[in-house]
Amino acid sequence: MDEYCIIASERGKRPSDFASEKPVRSVSDCVFCAGNEDKTPLATAVYKEGGVLVDTEGSLVTGWDIRCIPNLFPALSPKPAILPEDLAVSQWSIQEGFGYHEVIVESSIHGRMISDFSDDEMSLLMRVYRDRVSHYRSQDGIEHVSLFKNWGERAGASLDHTHSQLIALPILPPSLKREQDAIHAASGCPYCDIVGTESESVRLLYENSGAVAICPHFSMSPFEVWILPKQHVNHLANCTDEMLRLIGDAIRFVVSRYDVVLGSPSYNYMFHGIFDDDSYHLNVRLHPVLSTPAGFEKNTGIYINTVVPEAAASYLKG
Amino acid sequence: MDEYCIIASERGKRPSDFASEKPVRSVSDCVFCAGNEDKTPLATAVYKEGGVLVDTEGSLVTGWDIRCIPNLFPALSPKPAILPEDLAVSQWSIQEGFGYHEVIVESSIHGRMISDFSDDEMSLLMRVYRDRVSHYRSQDGIEHVSLFKNWGERAGASLDHTHSQLIALPILPPSLKREQDAIHAASGCPYCDIVGTESESVRLLYENSGAVAICPHFSMSPFEVWILPKQHVNHLANCTDEMLRLIGDAIRFVVSRYDVVLGSPSYNYMFHGIFDDDSYHLNVRLHPVLSTPAGFEKNTGIYINTVVPEAAASYLKG
Repeated sequence: MDEYCIIASERGKRPSDFASEKPVRSVSDCVFCAGNEDKTPLATAVYKEGGVLVDTEGSLVTGWDIRCIPNLFPALSPKPAILPEDLAVSQWSIQEGFGYHEVIVESSIHGRMISDFSDDEMSLLMRVYRDRVSHYRSQDGIEHVSLFKNWGERAGASLDHTHSQLIALPILPPSLKREQDAIHAASGCPYCDIVGTESESVRLLYENSGAVAICPHFSMSPFEVWILPKQHVNHLANCTDEMLRLIGDAIRFVVSRYDVVLGSPSYNYMFHGIFDDDSYHLNVRLHPVLSTPAGFEKNTGIYINTVVPEAAASYLKG
Repeated sequence: MDEYCIIASERGKRPSDFASEKPVRSVSDCVFCAGNEDKTPLATAVYKEGGVLVDTEGSLVTGWDIRCIPNLFPALSPKPAILPEDLAVSQWSIQEGFGYHEVIVESSIHGRMISDFSDDEMSLLMRVYRDRVSHYRSQDGIEHVSLFKNWGERAGASLDHTHSQLIALPILPPSLKREQDAIHAASGCPYCDIVGTESESVRLLYENSGAVAICPHFSMSPFEVWILPKQHVNHLANCTDEMLRLIGDAIRFVVSRYDVVLGSPSYNYMFHGIFDDDSYHLNVRLHPVLSTPAGFEKNTGIYINTVVPEAAASYLKG
């Protein structure tokens, strides 16, 4: 069966580590803050004053706007551990955990949130997203780059300084492969159809000249929102600066509404795109974390959502 | 694309309801306790002194061992709401939420846990599981019955009196359909192979004459355990009393080890089976809730697990 999980044992956790696991909330210890650049691995890309720099041993860039660093506890690694030879694997295919895992520190200022970002900050973040996924796509052996943001403890963020992450994978994830197959079998782009239909519906939450934000029929979780570029484009890597600006504007709008209407919930947002397949339509999915996936979801893969999308849109519009 | 979610708006939640959502922890208010039978819908099956009874208006069974009641806030209903006619659904298929949702109250005693259960109690629970899934399978329009237990707040339990749930569905869930297809394409039963291989491995956690409990290679979450009957059987519905007893014994063993080694964590367990397909092999999956699915999991469907299964088995064996 075409399913994967990643066993990432770098943290070497013991049972007792889980009970005490709490996000780091102390500002002075924050390794993502300006002034603590020496407390992380060397930055692989530092955005400063319109340019891009890198850290080198003994010369760490300061005064930066956005800083990209390898994850200290990577899910996948360019130099993965060698697999032991004595694994009994007859029914499973086991492979070394090759890939990359990067953290994008979105601001040097602790406590700054996406909803605080200026137009320029949001546009820069979107361009950094495009740059970094494109960079990792060009590495040998990489087929897909997952780009996402975890904000808040319930969304899985272990540090509260605003950041996004990307994980570069040697495979296209099966869920995306299935969606790709369905799109290839469809006549026309389903997402273009959604843009057209939902622009006129009560499920439309926000719209600018380049993007719509909707509460979709297929809402897995309460107050889920999708952001779709109006113009068909398959991936962030192929977006113009202007398209990025408008998608970023929509993301900031939705997150700001979550903060106001839902009381600053934890949330995730995820970019869904497929490199090198023009039939796909880039989409961003935002999930405030308001419910807990439980046995039914783990048993069936079907999510129960207690808020109808029409009501979600109405509440979020205010 | 063959994916589903369930929009269950019966609870009519507003944004403010999520912030205040806390599990009910007061014993005196517990609607699952003996003496509070009048605070739930009429029981559809009550197990008492070796027999099976039902509640009727004005005559509620007391002194019971296990009590099965319709969920007051069902995800699916035998009489679902009529869909509004003005939904724009061109890209999605929307259908009424037909099905059944039942709660199985496993004990009349508040605070009693699976790990406390006697052999007789555990065997009875397993027979009730078999009875109730078989009952719902026989209803018109039902294709699949999901059976699962949520224990603890982080596992999605909103009430802390020990209970399981079943949701009867008009479809086979897509995830199970994909696994079915993979098994049909395989030569021989992959789960029978796993029983054979893993019985000899360091990933074996427990074994009795009818079942094995293993920490599988495909562990989506830390300390995940699978329980497999040694004898090939496709579904609970086709298990003998003795097979049920031995599967139940293994479930109780694993949950007891979670309590001791992991400090009584929240957990889910789920039964995976397919009616009317002899090629499938019943399996029970247990997930203590020790980590939070985050943006990567929601983006890719691939789970990151920080504990290797060999270490998990070693810790759980103690």
